[in-house]
Amino acid sequence: MFISFEGIEGSGKSTQIKIISETLQKKGYKVISVREPGGTIVGEKIRDIFLQDTDENFDPLTEVLLLYASRKQLDNEIIKPNLNKGTIVIADRFYDATKAYQCYGKGVDINLVDSLHEQLNISKPDLSIYIDINPELSKERIANRKADRIEQESIEFFERVQNGYLELEKASDSFFLVDGSKSIKNISDEIERLIIDYLNV
Amino acid sequence: MFISFEGIEGSGKSTQIKIISETLQKKGYKVISVREPGGTIVGEKIRDIFLQDTDENFDPLTEVLLLYASRKQLDNEIIKPNLNKGTIVIADRFYDATKAYQCYGKGVDINLVDSLHEQLNISKPDLSIYIDINPELSKERIANRKADRIEQESIEFFERVQNGYLELEKASDSFFLVDGSKSIKNISDEIERLIIDYLNV
Repeated sequence: MFISFEGIEGSGKSTQIKIISETLQKKGYKVISVREPGGTIVGEKIRDIFLQDTDENFDPLTEVLLLYASRKQLDNEIIKPNLNKGTIVIADRFYDATKAYQCYGKGVDINLVDSLHEQLNISKPDLSIYIDINPELSKERIANRKADRIEQESIEFFERVQNGYLELEKASDSFFLVDGSKSIKNISDEIERLIIDYLNV
Repeated sequence: MFISFEGIEGSGKSTQIKIISETLQKKGYKVISVREPGGTIVGEKIRDIFLQDTDENFDPLTEVLLLYASRKQLDNEIIKPNLNKGTIVIADRFYDATKAYQCYGKGVDINLVDSLHEQLNISKPDLSIYIDINPELSKERIANRKADRIEQESIEFFERVQNGYLELEKASDSFFLVDGSKSIKNISDEIERLIIDYLNV
């Protein structure tokens, strides 16, 4: 089983991934979590390029290509081999993030991303869990972090990204929205239910 | 006018690019030369990743994606703006190199590269000049260099790349082969003739 966690900055993805990983492990499942971009030697180098502050204007397509270079390598080295062993793989952002950020957020054609994903023969999540918070709450929550290149984007950008995630939810029945303004315990209970339901089918 | 120089390691591309750039400048043309991957801030960082020694097995598709991330940015920042000003742009490897190295050399589907190039709306060379040498001569000529990740490939790999370039020449009438075993002067005279002919049409 391959699960991706989606959401804008400060949505609580990392916390929730940690909680559900421990819960699943206690139930006897093998679990591995990965982050994007990154997770491989070349992926972590791409992550540095991707997030580093720079005066250069990245073309949104350059972003897509960098993300997919990292994603292809991550899929080869970590995701596919672990899925083949029966391990549950949890990704901190994946396919849907590229659509929300680069397509809805920055105007890249969604068909380009879909066809690239197909052509590269990269795994697709069985389940995407989107933790929804509004951009104002996001800004508040990350106010004390040193903002990376993406986190420095405008509030209007994050509104487009949030809207993108909401559109993706409407279009897919393996994409689930969880209200990120609720308590950590509330959210983790809901996520656990979603995943256990899926595993029991 | 956009010209790419193609050829395997040690073919003498850099020397010839230097000679023809000076020749064209003396004739009053504005000329700029670029190299791939590289030529922009993010491109040079990608170049480091691409050429650095590593124990990791790069998927040939990861290579294509890294090359195109660099290429998209180079096209935006340098190639298109210079072509629009009427400057002659000379690239040390471009589109055809990806086909020769990653497709013919490493088995990537050539249609994937063609469609990616189209979808990304990247400039195409008006003229490609391929300096042909055989892989044995290449190995001899670069024996004293510290080999980068690509230069460490087997002689069989470079044979496939050479064969790829020869196939590309057959398939295109803007792709010209120059015999790289001739003298530098011989080669530069031939290249000058090819380019001046094109400019005079």
